[in-house]
Amino acid sequence: MSNIVRFGVSLEKDLLEKFDSLIESRNYTNRSEAIRDLIRQELIKEEWIEGEDVAGAITLVYDHHKRELLNKITDIQHDFQNIIISTQHIHLDHHNCLELIAVRGNPGQIQKLADRLRSIKGVKHGTLSMTTTGKNI
Amino acid sequence: MSNIVRFGVSLEKDLLEKFDSLIESRNYTNRSEAIRDLIRQELIKEEWIEGEDVAGAITLVYDHHKRELLNKITDIQHDFQNIIISTQHIHLDHHNCLELIAVRGNPGQIQKLADRLRSIKGVKHGTLSMTTTGKNI
Amino acid sequence: MSNIVRFGVSLEKDLLEKFDSLIESRNYTNRSEAIRDLIRQELIKEEWIEGEDVAGAITLVYDHHKRELLNKITDIQHDFQNIIISTQHIHLDHHNCLELIAVRGNPGQIQKLADRLRSIKGVKHGTLSMTTTGKNI
Amino acid sequence: MSNIVRFGVSLEKDLLEKFDSLIESRNYTNRSEAIRDLIRQELIKEEWIEGEDVAGAITLVYDHHKRELLNKITDIQHDFQNIIISTQHIHLDHHNCLELIAVRGNPGQIQKLADRLRSIKGVKHGTLSMTTTGKNI
Repeated sequence: MSNIVRFGVSLEKDLLEKFDSLIESRNYTNRSEAIRDLIRQELIKEEWIEGEDVAGAITLVYDHHKRELLNKITDIQHDFQNIIISTQHIHLDHHNCLELIAVRGNPGQIQKLADRLRSIKGVKHGTLSMTTTGKNI
Repeated sequence: MSNIVRFGVSLEKDLLEKFDSLIESRNYTNRSEAIRDLIRQELIKEEWIEGEDVAGAITLVYDHHKRELLNKITDIQHDFQNIIISTQHIHLDHHNCLELIAVRGNPGQIQKLADRLRSIKGVKHGTLSMTTTGKNI
Repeated sequence: MSNIVRFGVSLEKDLLEKFDSLIESRNYTNRSEAIRDLIRQELIKEEWIEGEDVAGAITLVYDHHKRELLNKITDIQHDFQNIIISTQHIHLDHHNCLELIAVRGNPGQIQKLADRLRSIKGVKHGTLSMTTTGKNI
Repeated sequence: MSNIVRFGVSLEKDLLEKFDSLIESRNYTNRSEAIRDLIRQELIKEEWIEGEDVAGAITLVYDHHKRELLNKITDIQHDFQNIIISTQHIHLDHHNCLELIAVRGNPGQIQKLADRLRSIKGVKHGTLSMTTTGKNI
């Protein structure tokens, strides 16, 4: 995406040793990669606060036998079709479904969609993962 | 899933009024549904701590042009194929991909898979949503 | 604080049994108390989002031997004296101090104070606990 | 605390520019200090998971007029006196108190104390801030 630059970081020796063993346990191949991830994490928090164009994933777990539930979930998704990219549906067992909805757009809109879906009777749990479009980081 | 039981909750009047306006703003149709959601939220936290069979979603954002990145991501997913249900891939722009991986199994294993994927050079961001198989709640 | 009202909640029997064993493990004496806590938790999140008058606690861990550190921490606290109620200082060992700052006021201001203190060179860690003045809940 | 070492980090130019403006907005004087904070944050999460000797702060908001509440809070604190360093008490208004309890010890014990206090009838809200003794970072 862009030119690589290099800069120096000064750190207490003890702290660096502890960091090295942490990143080894998390499978990082080098310090730069681990530090880049820490930095990106902070920037993505800001993107969501600042209201920039973001990406995310909504998960829903529900019992599809509940009357009218599928219709309601589909209706709401249509109301928000401008921020929904696609939906993945998994049959966890005879009753329970896991739905993963990939979204992109304004953080407030995404939050609102997640709230709407989560509050439907029959939806047992809903989560919202806040990530990035990758464009700016 | 099971028989409905009913029990009484006693509450300060002020608190109930505030709760009512909160759940209205979140689109709940009645108090029972809102309270069921609060209860399930707490139970799901416990499922993840207790190491029970759980469901989840891992999101990854990465630039697919990075050398060997796709191979690495695929290799790791194969090592954990017993907990991966399916994967949804979205092209965010010419460079950036959003991948949503539906998972199910032991919380520790799922956490490990998320760590492994997140630490790959070229993966810009990774999240893990902790949800439930719905079986017990 | 106010009159007690009572309302009924309907719930799947299984879910209630699980809830009962959760709240027992957390030492609640009855369901109403546990549910009140879940409700208040949600309301307090809203207070912080809505910008209402809130209370909080900032923790700092730092090495008081660092040159000029104590002066800087004190200077900043004076700039924010209108939101700081009081400060508790603990000597963790020869080097490390734990400072607990009780705050009250506008959420944005409190967040800003926490950021300012946390970013001082020599401050090893800082946290912000978001709680309530209790007035409205 | 220890010798300073220096190492290089390589990063995309765009990412570094964004990081620079983020840390400026958070008042950091240089990159090293900001990166040290990101690293310490991750290490402190590990200390709490690994069960090492940690420090923390518990906040409680409660109405001191509630019958027997002060006695109960004090009784429980005595049961955990080995992990409680000191307590700061603030009168928020005629009814509401904010109590900040500085703790140190085993993470599991601290969590248990926080759960016990939070679940007392009359305690409106409780939080637990997880920080460090500073010894190892």
